[in-house]
Amino acid sequence: MNHNKGETHWIIPDGYIPPLSSGELLSHESICILNLNDEDANLLISIYFEDLEPIERIPVLTKGKRSNHLRTSALELNGNSIPVGVPYSLEVESDLPIIVQYSRLDSTQPGLALMSTMGYPLK
Amino acid sequence: MNHNKGETHWIIPDGYIPPLSSGELLSHESICILNLNDEDANLLISIYFEDLEPIERIPVLTKGKRSNHLRTSALELNGNSIPVGVPYSLEVESDLPIIVQYSRLDSTQPGLALMSTMGYPLK
Amino acid sequence: MNHNKGETHWIIPDGYIPPLSSGELLSHESICILNLNDEDANLLISIYFEDLEPIERIPVLTKGKRSNHLRTSALELNGNSIPVGVPYSLEVESDLPIIVQYSRLDSTQPGLALMSTMGYPLK
Amino acid sequence: MNHNKGETHWIIPDGYIPPLSSGELLSHESICILNLNDEDANLLISIYFEDLEPIERIPVLTKGKRSNHLRTSALELNGNSIPVGVPYSLEVESDLPIIVQYSRLDSTQPGLALMSTMGYPLK
Repeated sequence: MNHNKGETHWIIPDGYIPPLSSGELLSHESICILNLNDEDANLLISIYFEDLEPIERIPVLTKGKRSNHLRTSALELNGNSIPVGVPYSLEVESDLPIIVQYSRLDSTQPGLALMSTMGYPLK
Repeated sequence: MNHNKGETHWIIPDGYIPPLSSGELLSHESICILNLNDEDANLLISIYFEDLEPIERIPVLTKGKRSNHLRTSALELNGNSIPVGVPYSLEVESDLPIIVQYSRLDSTQPGLALMSTMGYPLK
Repeated sequence: MNHNKGETHWIIPDGYIPPLSSGELLSHESICILNLNDEDANLLISIYFEDLEPIERIPVLTKGKRSNHLRTSALELNGNSIPVGVPYSLEVESDLPIIVQYSRLDSTQPGLALMSTMGYPLK
Repeated sequence: MNHNKGETHWIIPDGYIPPLSSGELLSHESICILNLNDEDANLLISIYFEDLEPIERIPVLTKGKRSNHLRTSALELNGNSIPVGVPYSLEVESDLPIIVQYSRLDSTQPGLALMSTMGYPLK
């Protein structure tokens, strides 16, 4: 087996936290990260908006040999977080190689919608 | 961190604007773009059909350090736009490197459907 | 702009035609192809099953400068086609470079589900 | 046609088996594998959690020239399997090159949700 453990820079252009929910499941997004290294990875997550200055370099830790499903609504820096109902984009930088996938669950209408894509790695 | 800011040529083969909607959310597609450069990016978007001549090189601006969630129904050139209910494909060219994701929301039937994929970069 | 027009060999591991539909929309899958070349592309599509011999090299034409949204249920060779309700995988070979995306619409239950992914290019 | 048959190391960061189902379809995930080789491929699948030690190297066979749609709930090693309702990540290693896609069906709420993405190949 090779020893490539991923990439250190990932982009997700389509971010959006649905403001409404119905039924048992809350509308939300997750950044899903796998850290195949033995050591913890230190991530910096930046948020880009359509008409506002970015929120840059929110620190997040992902433990070694662990998965991290991170809700975007939990990201916060100096009192700034991602508003619901606003289109934005995500950048993930890491000091160690990781693999990043993005998924959204939308329960605005009865019946549930899911979407997912691998992040885009900048090499 | 590396300074790669994406690619200048992206393809989305599966375009389709659903003609019907139900409930609170309108059926639509978005091309989601992140421009990590300080400068504005000038995009040219082309639309390919199954049995019609393409609509080529619709100009779109995406500001520097900004996200752009562009509804495909808003694309227009010389009075031509994308008809609803017609399968097509999308090509995005840019003078600066960007990252492109495509998402569709379909609310034709009660309960909502989402799909998303990263665009395919031609390098 | 570069002149890369895609790849000639694409894989979609998750093929499945849902046997049931409800509401206005029929459950189906599509292979969505963009041919950026001026000339027509000659494709050969192979179908791999879990416990049956593959159906190999079904010919399909995609016109130059055109999109092709091909329903998998329309693929047929010597009287063989893809049965509904059976997991399978798809291989697309082409004499000219193309770009391939795969999407599925499932309306088995009231309310609709969509999924999509870019094909995996073998370079 | 080229003779590249895929990659031997694939990652899926967003794994999750929904605990609830409604209607005709059971909530589940599948790892969808295509083995284009003539010979059988021997896979080792590892499961990474957020707060538990990983389950490493569960053996799985995928026959030559065959598709394999593998339900994650069927993975088992020494009495350990993937609990429902727990976020995790997947690693797939193979002795032969393969192609890997991941899909999830969620029927927690009436009406069905689907998501899918190609795995991320570590080259």
